[in-house]
Amino acid sequence: MSGPALDGLVEALRRLPGVGLKSAQRMAYHLLQHDRPGAGELAQALRAAVERVRHCERCHTFSESAVCATCRDPARDASLLCVVETPADQLALERSGGYRGLYFVLMGRLSPLDGIGVRDIGLAQLLQRVGEASVVEVVVATSFTAEGEATAHAIAEALRARGVRSTRLARGVPVGSELEHVDLGTLAQALNDRR
Amino acid sequence: MSGPALDGLVEALRRLPGVGLKSAQRMAYHLLQHDRPGAGELAQALRAAVERVRHCERCHTFSESAVCATCRDPARDASLLCVVETPADQLALERSGGYRGLYFVLMGRLSPLDGIGVRDIGLAQLLQRVGEASVVEVVVATSFTAEGEATAHAIAEALRARGVRSTRLARGVPVGSELEHVDLGTLAQALNDRR
Repeated sequence: MSGPALDGLVEALRRLPGVGLKSAQRMAYHLLQHDRPGAGELAQALRAAVERVRHCERCHTFSESAVCATCRDPARDASLLCVVETPADQLALERSGGYRGLYFVLMGRLSPLDGIGVRDIGLAQLLQRVGEASVVEVVVATSFTAEGEATAHAIAEALRARGVRSTRLARGVPVGSELEHVDLGTLAQALNDRR
Repeated sequence: MSGPALDGLVEALRRLPGVGLKSAQRMAYHLLQHDRPGAGELAQALRAAVERVRHCERCHTFSESAVCATCRDPARDASLLCVVETPADQLALERSGGYRGLYFVLMGRLSPLDGIGVRDIGLAQLLQRVGEASVVEVVVATSFTAEGEATAHAIAEALRARGVRSTRLARGVPVGSELEHVDLGTLAQALNDRR
């Protein structure tokens, strides 16, 4: 109805995760009616990011230099390597303030149904990274979902075969929870892992 | 943490309506990890839309030509003019298949708290449009919210002062509803407007 440029913008916005037809229309109308400078800045930011953002050679997180700032930081404890699924997970751990080691970002997790295997999550690169560096302990911090657990299992097995110590984040009752509202699986795990 | 280009992309995505920090990060990560062509296409679509999309001179909807396809369509009934708030509302009415007249799109609605007055919704242009054309009836199809009702009232008053007939979409029970689940205000209105 409205012409190819507007339809094209709606279609392009629909490729964003979590954006359906109605949201894409609302975004397009908003940008064109109320925030044309914002549309220009978004176009510019997209081009700049596609051009400049690549992956850190050491930890695979997004980086605009060959090696990311975290991997270059000499104050980091190089004997600890934390394996996470995404840069968002890495950011969450950083914000917790409880970790001063280095990272390896899988940029995904095992998902056989979607055709994502050990090659896609860079298991070989992780093992190479562990082999070449002074890593004493690998903290496996993948999600506590079925796919995250399968990923953690595959990594732990591969590390054990190489004699590298691996640990997993503790499972248990979240801080601030009332016991009666905690799900049964978590309670069982917390009982089992009591200390 | 990740560098200026990635941070800039997240910031630019946050300007989209309904997108917070977490969603913007997820969108940026998705584009950079899984859909770099999509990022390029979105940048291109944004530029094309900002460059080409303007407003129809007659009905004010988004258009890539001076007068939009609907206003140019000789099969439309030029004696009927339907006033809507947004192109999305216009699209919904078109899809209902129940209207063959022309439109006037306010591109907003009265909202004194946000500083949006009659000038911003183009009331003067609407009155000029009604005056110059062969409009017999104006169908006021603004939203049935407080702001939409205030907008409808202002338009109806202005049209009455000029002796132009204006009507409002019927209020009542939605098609497919069970009465017990319809809100009381709607039921009262449906009783009042029974026919």
